[in-house]
Order: sequence, then C-alpha cells, then structure tokens
Amino acid sequence: MTRAATPAALHRTAPEINAKRLLRRLDEIAEIGRDPGGGITRLGFSAADIAARSYFLGEASAPNLNAWVDAGGNIIVRSEVESSSERTLLIGSHLDTVLNAGRLDGTYGVIAALEVIQTMAESGVGTELAVAAAAFANEEGALFPQPFWGSKVLAGKLSELPSAPADYNGASLHDALALAGGDLRALSSAAWPAGGIAAYLELHVEQGPVLERLGKPIGIVDGITGRTVLTLQITGASGHAGTTPMAGRRDALAAAARIVLAVESIAGEQRLCRAGTVGWVAAKPNSPNTIAGTVQLVVDLRDTQAERLANSEARLHHELTEVAQATGVEIEVTAASRSAPASTDPALRAVIADSARELGLGYQLMPSGAGHDAQILATVAPAGMIFVPSIGGVSHVPEEDTAPEDLISGARVLLRAAMRVARAT
Amino acid sequence: MTRAATPAALHRTAPEINAKRLLRRLDEIAEIGRDPGGGITRLGFSAADIAARSYFLGEASAPNLNAWVDAGGNIIVRSEVESSSERTLLIGSHLDTVLNAGRLDGTYGVIAALEVIQTMAESGVGTELAVAAAAFANEEGALFPQPFWGSKVLAGKLSELPSAPADYNGASLHDALALAGGDLRALSSAAWPAGGIAAYLELHVEQGPVLERLGKPIGIVDGITGRTVLTLQITGASGHAGTTPMAGRRDALAAAARIVLAVESIAGEQRLCRAGTVGWVAAKPNSPNTIAGTVQLVVDLRDTQAERLANSEARLHHELTEVAQATGVEIEVTAASRSAPASTDPALRAVIADSARELGLGYQLMPSGAGHDAQILATVAPAGMIFVPSIGGVSHVPEEDTAPEDLISGARVLLRAAMRVARAT
Repeated sequence: MTRAATPAALHRTAPEINAKRLLRRLDEIAEIGRDPGGGITRLGFSAADIAARSYFLGEASAPNLNAWVDAGGNIIVRSEVESSSERTLLIGSHLDTVLNAGRLDGTYGVIAALEVIQTMAESGVGTELAVAAAAFANEEGALFPQPFWGSKVLAGKLSELPSAPADYNGASLHDALALAGGDLRALSSAAWPAGGIAAYLELHVEQGPVLERLGKPIGIVDGITGRTVLTLQITGASGHAGTTPMAGRRDALAAAARIVLAVESIAGEQRLCRAGTVGWVAAKPNSPNTIAGTVQLVVDLRDTQAERLANSEARLHHELTEVAQATGVEIEVTAASRSAPASTDPALRAVIADSARELGLGYQLMPSGAGHDAQILATVAPAGMIFVPSIGGVSHVPEEDTAPEDLISGARVLLRAAMRVARAT
Repeated sequence: MTRAATPAALHRTAPEINAKRLLRRLDEIAEIGRDPGGGITRLGFSAADIAARSYFLGEASAPNLNAWVDAGGNIIVRSEVESSSERTLLIGSHLDTVLNAGRLDGTYGVIAALEVIQTMAESGVGTELAVAAAAFANEEGALFPQPFWGSKVLAGKLSELPSAPADYNGASLHDALALAGGDLRALSSAAWPAGGIAAYLELHVEQGPVLERLGKPIGIVDGITGRTVLTLQITGASGHAGTTPMAGRRDALAAAARIVLAVESIAGEQRLCRAGTVGWVAAKPNSPNTIAGTVQLVVDLRDTQAERLANSEARLHHELTEVAQATGVEIEVTAASRSAPASTDPALRAVIADSARELGLGYQLMPSGAGHDAQILATVAPAGMIFVPSIGGVSHVPEEDTAPEDLISGARVLLRAAMRVARAT
C-alpha cells in the first residue's frame, strides 16, 4: 500500500537527483567550444554546437530514455516510464551560446532537465503526464539571427520565422540544420499538437545580481520581460576637429551622447521601463582628428508589461526628435526586434514555491530580465521558470558561474516540481 | 637700367606662375594612392607615399633646380639661380596623407612651392636669399605615429622624436626610411644650421569653412592652434542588459556620454578653448545585449593660446572627477600628444597681405585650427602661412577640394610673397 504512505514517508523515499552526475556533465560539456581565453563559444548550428549536441545525445542514451532530433533541430529526450496520459510535461532550455560565453546559461537547464527525467526514469515512479526534456536549437541566434528558433518551431510559430533563414554571412540554414539532424523542408512536423504540452518548466541561471544580493538560492519567475531593440542611425556632418568652428557643427557623436543619456533616464530616473541600455556604438570615421559624421547605436528597452514597453519607446521617439532639432543631425530608427512580455503560470509558481519550501530553500518571486525559451512556450502552455543565483550577477561572459550547491538546489527543486506537475504516483 | 624700373613696370614684367602646370601636377599626383572609393591614401613612408615622392622628384628634375633627399626623408628642391646670401627662404608642406584623404591638404603646398621656385628659376630673376622647396616627410603620422617627423628633423628637434621610431605594428622606421632615400642613423645631418633658414612660407588649404563663408580667397594665418590629445580609459562594470537593475549599474558608455558632452561644452558654451572634440570611441564588449564594461575615448582640445589650452584641460579633469563620482566608473587619462600653439611672423603676414592686395585678392587674418609643418619651423625661423578656401570646409576626406581659381590665386600670392621675402633684384 505505498499509495497510503504518509507525506513524511514519501519524503524519505522520494527520488533524488544524482548531483555528481549533474556536475560532471556540466564540466564535460564546458570543454566543448572552449575559447583560448577561457570562454565558451558554441554559436547555434556551428560545429561546436553540433559537438555539444552529440555529447548530450550520448548522455541521453540511457535505460528508459528515448532521444531524437526533430525537424527544427531540437533534441527531445522522453522518459519511457509508463504514463497514463499522452500529454507531456516538457522541461528544457538550450545548449547554444553567444560569443565567448560562460559555461552555464541554457546548458545548465538542459543538463538539469536530463538529470530530472533520468532520475524519474531510474526511480521507476509512474506519472500521469508523459515527461520529456528538450534542448531547443539556436535560442541565442548568435550565428543564425533567428533567436528562439527551436522553441518557435516546436510551438508551431513557423509564421514568425523567416522563410529562408540564413546566417550573418548569408549562408542558408538548410545545410547547417541538416548536419544537426533537422530538415528545413519538414519544419511543420516538429510542431507539437495543441494541448500536447501539459506544462513547461525551465531552470536557468538568473544572469543578474538579485538572488545573490538577497542571499536566496531559488528564484521563481513571475514574468519574462518583453524587449524592444531599436537600431539608430545618426547622421551629422564630418569635419576636421581643429578647423571646424564649434558653432554650426553637426557632431553625430555629441548627438549620440545625448541619446545614450536619454535611454538611461527613461529606465532610470523616469522609471518608464525596467531596463534601458545602449551597449553597442559605432562611429564613423572614428578618427581622433575628425568630427564623427555618422554614429550607429543599438537601444535595448525591457519591461514585463507591454504597455510600459510601448510608453518607453514613445518617450524615446520624443527625445530623438528633440535631439535631432537641438543638434541638427538626422536620426533614422529601425526596429531590430520586438518580443512581447510573457507571464508564467500561477499554479506552476505555487508548485515551485512548495517544492523549494519542502527542501528548506529560500525563494524569491522575480521577473526575468533576459529572454528565454519559456517565453515562447508560455504562449502555448502553462510555463514555470526557476532561477538559481549568478555569482557577481554576470552572464554571457567567461566569468559566468553559480556555486555548485546552488546548481544542485535548482535541480532538486526542478525534480520536486516536475514530479508534482507530472503527478507522480 | 632695369633696376630703375617703376613699380608699374615691375608689375608688368613680374614673373607669373604656370597655372596649367600647377593644376596638371595636382591632377597627376592625385592618381597615386587612390582608393577604390575615390579617396587617396598615401600614409607617410608607405609604398604609395614613396611613389608620390618619386613623381615629385621627377617633376623637380628641371633646368636650374637641384633636388635631393635628406637623411630624414625630406625632399629639398633648391633653385640654382644665383643668390647673394647662403641663408635660405624655405617654402614647403608635405605629400603624405591620412587614410582615405582628399587630393590637396599638404600636397597643394608642396606642388605650389615647386611651382614658385621653378617660376623664379625660369624667370632668371636673381635673389638675395637662396630659395628652396621642401616636401616634409610624414607630417600626418598616420602609419608611423611620429607626426611632423620631417620638419622636426630639419629643425633639429631630434630630442622630440623617439630613438627607435616604429609603425603601429611595431615595424621599425629604419627600412621604410631607407626606401624613401633617408638614413635613420644619420638624422643629425639633415638638421639645418641655426640661422640657415631666413624665413619659412607654407601655402595650405584652410581645411575649415571660414574663408568660404566670408567669400575671401586668401587667409593669412596669425597663429597655429596648439593641440592637446588625451586618451581616456573608462572602466565600469559589464553586465546583461536585461538582468542588471538600473540602480547600481556602472555603465561605461553612459559615463562616456557625459564626457563627450562635457568636452563639447568646454569649447562650446563655456568657450574655454577654440575647439573640443571626441571623434573616436571604442566600447567593450560592444554588444547590444550587454552593458559596456569599458569605453575608450580620445579627446582633442585646441587653442592658439597655451594658457587657454591648459585651462580647458584643467576644466576637463574637474569634469572627469565629477563623472567618475556620479557614475561609479574609473577614468584613466593619458596624454597622447601635446603641441604648443605657434605664432607666425608679423613681418611675413604683412608681406603676404601686400602681395594679396597687389593682386586684388581679398584676405582674412585667421588662426589655423589644424597643425602644420609651419608650427615646427616657426620655432627656428620666422614663418608665414597662406590659406585658400576649402569647399564645404571639409578636409581629410575624399570630398576635400578647392576651386581651381583659388588654387591659382594661392600660388600667385605665394610667388609674390616669396619674391619679396627673397628680395628679388
């Protein structure tokens, strides 16, 4: 009569992740795509990415697990332990990285997802929902500029993807996808039927400083920020820095400086959105002796509310008009990308909170400032997201790291939450 | 009794430049080092520069002219027409260019100097002073970062030059200088004896908009601005643009924006110096998704008065301290170069003004915002400088140009002034 076990007894006999295996896999996969300087570069569909995918497929070749690659290049690993429903709890993230990245980011979520379904499979515990792990292809879009490629394919959002996807050099995705085991002409076969995903869970490093500052090991994501990326082309007039009088200059870099501060103010003092950043600048001719004739900036605005994101962008347009009038430059704005904010599922948040509480781990409800595959899945299924602290709050850099005990805690919470959601019997 | 000729008679018989030859040479030399995009690149001591020097030496192989290359790589062309003094009126400028430059800049002054001494030689008019043209080596310092190389060598300022000059890639100047006909180990042989230069004249395009705006064909330079170039290294903290809260950011690009505006204000609203420019910026990692961790700027301050230049720099240091305190970044300042302001000789200014007036050409007394070989020569001899208008006020760009009639007028004024200074008999 195991079904009649008390909660205390269930706790004693509950399956537990293999922490050693989790950390070993994270160490091993970090050797793939390692840069001479210590970072990791596995751009989606690059040779290094394909090597990491092969490693993952090898680790997923285990008893009671069944792994395959769908037409979009996603790796799906399904537990073969019997379930009473065809509907699936999907747990995932991505293996691809940005240039000179850290070792965790999406990789941690994928390796932890495998650990969780493998632990469940090894325990032999039956579930109501089928359980699968997913390594989504090309989340970063760092080589083929179609971020969330794999999750969009799986979620059936083919209309949001270019019909002839190509990399930054114009090379078609067709061949690279085929090497990864996908098939560009059969993408629709990779879309899951409506309702097929009963729930989605994703574990990720926070990539920010909040949990570290609060001293809490677990973050529960309430919303994933939307993001508006604008490319600005500022055209002034070049000229000799010594011979062009100050009066009448149309200095594109001086105009750009005003815009950088306007973006900072919109998110800072004005608090119109959660974050506003100019992180990329290119001046021409970029000569110490010459007034900048043109400057390009990329503006990144983020908020968890669509209306606030729109208001921030409107405010920026107003500021751009004022800068153009004050400085005599012309400013051309192009929307490089827009992603809508997404909310996680309140019931899944509660399950994650209960799981953390049972394990005696403090947690914090918080938004995600970065984009994740979860924001795509959230449009077709209830989605939940767990964060673990990032040391120093940094990510997308070689120094990105999380303490081993926090990596283990995150995976333990993910396992507990997965078993509750899948209704382990 | 030609010595008793009336001024009117002298005017009738005065030698005149060969305008067709002047313009032909400017057209021909503009084909050397031409970029695919239409500009001209003849970095000092590059292959293109050496080709231009060969062209010039060929044109200087004319009756009554004697050309040679000194140890510093300067090309000197001396008129062999008899003079009563060993002291020399030197007329010069430079043939080397910046990257993707225009066709005039220093080249105009060199070709016009040749035209003037050739005209004087052809006329057979005797002079009291010897007369020579100079094409100074590597004025721009665009490949070998030792600007004013040739004029400093000729002026005997060897202590201001590096003992082991090298290009930006670390290649020694030794071989390049030898290809140009110089000799790094014999530099001191190229220094002229004290008093050997009786006067120096230089004709140049204005490189700014003043003469064009005033509608005057001739500028008479009263002072050459000093220049202080500072390299700033701004160190903040990199971080994910979405996950790093606005509060507590140390955004190096936001700090850099404040500095760009401070420099603009120092020269603009505050009028502490004639010009202040940030034309060069480099951000790292320069990723749209990442807060800039470090930004480098190059600040260029100019004024004709040393005290104002020093005050401007002091004001900038004050502003940098404030920016560092307000934004939490660290700012390291390195003085990349300092050149002192130089004054032209009042008597030579008067000679140039008289020459322009005789030719019915309007003129304007004005400072030079750019640096010129004349500022080096001014420290060892009386120096005078003539400007002609720059179309659109632009220079150091492919569009740099001057109307043919203005090019001719400038050379005519130079000839008249040279004959007066050399005391044509």
